[in-house]
Amino acid sequence: MIDLRSDTVTTPDDAMRQAAATADVGDDVYGEDPTVNELEARVADRLGTEAALYCPTGTMANQVAARVHTERGQEVLADRRSHVVKYELGGFAQHSALQVRMFDADRGVPSPERVGEGVVTEDLHRPGTGLLCLENTHNARGGLAIEPERIAAAAEAAHEHDVPVHLDGARLFNAATALDVPITDLTEPVDTVMVSLSKGLGAPVGSMLAGPEAFIERARRTRKLFGGGMRQAGLVAAPGLEALENVADLATDHENAQRLADGLAAVDGISVQAPETNIVLADVAETGIETDTVVERLREREVLATAFGPTTIRFCTHRDVTRADVEEAVERIETALA
Amino acid sequence: MIDLRSDTVTTPDDAMRQAAATADVGDDVYGEDPTVNELEARVADRLGTEAALYCPTGTMANQVAARVHTERGQEVLADRRSHVVKYELGGFAQHSALQVRMFDADRGVPSPERVGEGVVTEDLHRPGTGLLCLENTHNARGGLAIEPERIAAAAEAAHEHDVPVHLDGARLFNAATALDVPITDLTEPVDTVMVSLSKGLGAPVGSMLAGPEAFIERARRTRKLFGGGMRQAGLVAAPGLEALENVADLATDHENAQRLADGLAAVDGISVQAPETNIVLADVAETGIETDTVVERLREREVLATAFGPTTIRFCTHRDVTRADVEEAVERIETALA
Amino acid sequence: MIDLRSDTVTTPDDAMRQAAATADVGDDVYGEDPTVNELEARVADRLGTEAALYCPTGTMANQVAARVHTERGQEVLADRRSHVVKYELGGFAQHSALQVRMFDADRGVPSPERVGEGVVTEDLHRPGTGLLCLENTHNARGGLAIEPERIAAAAEAAHEHDVPVHLDGARLFNAATALDVPITDLTEPVDTVMVSLSKGLGAPVGSMLAGPEAFIERARRTRKLFGGGMRQAGLVAAPGLEALENVADLATDHENAQRLADGLAAVDGISVQAPETNIVLADVAETGIETDTVVERLREREVLATAFGPTTIRFCTHRDVTRADVEEAVERIETALA
Amino acid sequence: MIDLRSDTVTTPDDAMRQAAATADVGDDVYGEDPTVNELEARVADRLGTEAALYCPTGTMANQVAARVHTERGQEVLADRRSHVVKYELGGFAQHSALQVRMFDADRGVPSPERVGEGVVTEDLHRPGTGLLCLENTHNARGGLAIEPERIAAAAEAAHEHDVPVHLDGARLFNAATALDVPITDLTEPVDTVMVSLSKGLGAPVGSMLAGPEAFIERARRTRKLFGGGMRQAGLVAAPGLEALENVADLATDHENAQRLADGLAAVDGISVQAPETNIVLADVAETGIETDTVVERLREREVLATAFGPTTIRFCTHRDVTRADVEEAVERIETALA
Repeated sequence: MIDLRSDTVTTPDDAMRQAAATADVGDDVYGEDPTVNELEARVADRLGTEAALYCPTGTMANQVAARVHTERGQEVLADRRSHVVKYELGGFAQHSALQVRMFDADRGVPSPERVGEGVVTEDLHRPGTGLLCLENTHNARGGLAIEPERIAAAAEAAHEHDVPVHLDGARLFNAATALDVPITDLTEPVDTVMVSLSKGLGAPVGSMLAGPEAFIERARRTRKLFGGGMRQAGLVAAPGLEALENVADLATDHENAQRLADGLAAVDGISVQAPETNIVLADVAETGIETDTVVERLREREVLATAFGPTTIRFCTHRDVTRADVEEAVERIETALA
Repeated sequence: MIDLRSDTVTTPDDAMRQAAATADVGDDVYGEDPTVNELEARVADRLGTEAALYCPTGTMANQVAARVHTERGQEVLADRRSHVVKYELGGFAQHSALQVRMFDADRGVPSPERVGEGVVTEDLHRPGTGLLCLENTHNARGGLAIEPERIAAAAEAAHEHDVPVHLDGARLFNAATALDVPITDLTEPVDTVMVSLSKGLGAPVGSMLAGPEAFIERARRTRKLFGGGMRQAGLVAAPGLEALENVADLATDHENAQRLADGLAAVDGISVQAPETNIVLADVAETGIETDTVVERLREREVLATAFGPTTIRFCTHRDVTRADVEEAVERIETALA
Repeated sequence: MIDLRSDTVTTPDDAMRQAAATADVGDDVYGEDPTVNELEARVADRLGTEAALYCPTGTMANQVAARVHTERGQEVLADRRSHVVKYELGGFAQHSALQVRMFDADRGVPSPERVGEGVVTEDLHRPGTGLLCLENTHNARGGLAIEPERIAAAAEAAHEHDVPVHLDGARLFNAATALDVPITDLTEPVDTVMVSLSKGLGAPVGSMLAGPEAFIERARRTRKLFGGGMRQAGLVAAPGLEALENVADLATDHENAQRLADGLAAVDGISVQAPETNIVLADVAETGIETDTVVERLREREVLATAFGPTTIRFCTHRDVTRADVEEAVERIETALA
Repeated sequence: MIDLRSDTVTTPDDAMRQAAATADVGDDVYGEDPTVNELEARVADRLGTEAALYCPTGTMANQVAARVHTERGQEVLADRRSHVVKYELGGFAQHSALQVRMFDADRGVPSPERVGEGVVTEDLHRPGTGLLCLENTHNARGGLAIEPERIAAAAEAAHEHDVPVHLDGARLFNAATALDVPITDLTEPVDTVMVSLSKGLGAPVGSMLAGPEAFIERARRTRKLFGGGMRQAGLVAAPGLEALENVADLATDHENAQRLADGLAAVDGISVQAPETNIVLADVAETGIETDTVVERLREREVLATAFGPTTIRFCTHRDVTRADVEEAVERIETALA
């Protein structure tokens, strides 16, 4: 089975398993897990923030961030196709009573002008804007690696209105790799950032919320409210520390994605969006076959992919998929659609 | 002072005041206020619904409707420029934990295709769509009188996905008047509707939520939760009954709006959106004067209007403004901008 | 029909109706209703607070107060039998995400020691206490007129922990009358207070939230969120101004309550809690008849009362019930239970 | 350092670490982690329920359970000293808009009569009761092992009113061990139950929510909303499977608790509540020393305990504390308080 559904399916390698087996642990609710503490310090250092917080999932990290940044009833500016809008069960409204003012912008990032237009000033009738939420890489738009300048321009516009900026950077290491910039170029313009350890980096569990120390302290309490205050979390944080060593390997995933895109582009009826990182969006409209049927046919040939809307299929490369796997996958896809 | 800010400023006439003074009242929390009961029955009859509920404001009626229609965490489809999105303090998120999926459609009503695209099916990641909310007349888009066919097409598309439809008809009597259709043509396609008595019809207080009997029973309880269970409400419902007699006068407001629009269009630097009801949107961008300054200069000349974004000013005609007032207002505005 | 269910059933008298008919009104959402403004100023003056806000109901006033006082997730200390706990649909949790720490204290007011014990300090696991809510007169405990010293002692204890105090004074004028103290003796110890105009004072609609000016400004916005921003509210505020003139008449209601209590005490099988204001609680356990049946039998004899738990019936005197009515009611009750 | 603060501090043993290192894992959001699936099946089997769900914490499991059982705005019956009330940040109100009707009953379990009294029937003013929440062992009351009959009687009373029952059984294996009954005797009367793997059983992370299959399916989605949908969770579920083997060892913790209690009882100024499981509550009022000071003095002597209110200290035995440790701890405590 060649599993191209998502980089979330990556399984921990031997180094990670060994790290789990030998981790020095304590009760993290008391702040006494040395491995968690090390991971939090290491990530904060890597991202150039004062502090970081280990969370069981990226969804929790994003939702906790929004809650700590805002007051109930405020508005959040977010892309219509962002993860926080599409795949977190309406959490901004549910957890934090926030109204999302969705924008639909080129590469998922509003221009400074559009940020200004979207900002609502609090008055008797209007709740005021409390947060701008960006995403990098942008998953639903095809794993786009958003440029530092673009992030910085939007963030600066938000800051001019005293609106803080949270970056959903679940795949931020992919973005930095693809853009060949220090990751801090991507985090420096924003106030807080989430990065995931359990996607391309291969850790089994965990995402990090990073930002100013005072913010992270409040986030720690909110994480408890959400039920994220785990005990000897060092056992899963240890593989997370190992995962940080895998950043260099992401370039391989990107090369594989390009290979996959090239292969798919040659298949009759498929048109492909040029991949920027490890995500490949293929439009199968011209095959005349519904995406669910396409996905099912691929599954029969032991290739897994994700139906991503009525005519689009998402393929995602990752460390558990080799170059040979990708080439084999292309062949099977060609057969499946023949 | 010629007050063109809003038709909410209309003051009760003698008949309404007399009705208040002589109203037969009881405790409406016990369902024993005969005047409220009569008003609710009369409005339900007029709108062609099984039942109706008297609410202190249109905001409460809209918010109660959304809460009764949905389950927490669902999505609502609503126009980006609708009242429920812009002027109700993010109430859908605050009161009902709903995520608004905003659309931006011609005349504020999505085509059937766009309704279909906007509907989210409930799954592990997505909350599902619980409501389509429409507005007629559409205030922020210039008092547009939305045609029955357009409402019906959107509603039908929603119903195909088992999504109910609520109509914010704060100025629905204006729409019916302008379109010269029975108001039931506008209510028949939707599940529930709010109409306001305290705008063009001139009542001092009150909006009605109308719909199926079982829905209204649940809404009655939710109204209590919101703090809308008033006691001898018949005293303000009685002027509301009188207000229902004023529907025929709305045509005069529309004529005055047309007059105002014609007059404004002749003023240098002003361009005017053709009014469909009692609202006139004037773009003052070419005067080079900021809207706040324009509004202030008008105020100095005893004409009141509402700044409505960076270059737009809204004027609203109503029963407390005569044809002569409108003509006088145009002259003053011309002077103010000279 | 002699209606002793509640003083909420009082109907507006001629002076109130005349006041409604002649009220000077404006759009209160713009702050331009002179009658509302006068009522708010008058009530603030009477209660010794900086400002006041007209609300459609006492429930809205209480709920708005709690929301403005607290941050989401905090705890509120409130009596288990208080109106905010029993009859507002769990509003503290629903509107403001507050956990109520219920106490069960003599006369519904905790001793300073119990306040101290009930206060929760915010930590990683605990939300912190954000409000102490008291009630005077205490409805469900039998219309108890709570003494200034008792209110002051509890409030002082709360303030020592920086916890603000809101007083649900729906019937606070009754308390001041019964205790024969200036009403400011009862409001001075607390931060905010709600008083109702539509109960014993006889106004058709409305309760006032009174407190510091900055607090009331925030409450005004929250009232809008709840759907309480009415337009020409002066029409119902005017009877409210008249209602303020009726305070002196409350003593008569209290005398009638005493008469009723004396009469009921003489009926076989009924034991009566000594009334302090206009509420009489009668225990009918020894009649061996269920309260619902008792209430039904009374209704057949044209006396209305409220079943108030398994063995208790509440009778409430008010300005629409005369001394003769009360005497007649006692006779009918005696017959009904014979 | 002898750590008697909590059994949450237990660290994974070699078998658990080995299990983590060799776990067969998959993406649990897709339901494809075989180790998680095995753990869920094993726990459901052990507890006699149809299904179970792995959660990162007991707090999340309890909060998810409450949300799935109830409709927003309902009431929950729970002991004033229960974990859900005291230590989950007011989560019932925050996550699910529930009002907690706190009771204060012998052994933390209300008698059937009190359940009946506490149940609120939904009406215009009242939200209705949606859940009874029990706790076993009862932590804050001293680790009480609540008898099956007591649980069953309360649950039966709730069920008579169609109110479901959730059992916070974080330490339910301790209860079954102490009472020497099959654990199913304790789960059979209730609808859903949470058991913790990361307390006395020694797993690093995780609690299980168990109940009917349809309930667990809905809980799975709500867990996602809370941010609890972890990926290769098998890596921490594997130690959880090992932890299930440790149930028999809990008896040793209980013996050590008895030893500790006996030792403490002999110390001047300390009175001890007879322990039923692994928790010992010591009242130090008569020492005249504040609990915080006592805890600090113990810490200086390398014994850790938890201040548990103004005069009470909680000691908790667990698998990382030996009989010798306990004896040594008693000596040090004696010295510390001398």
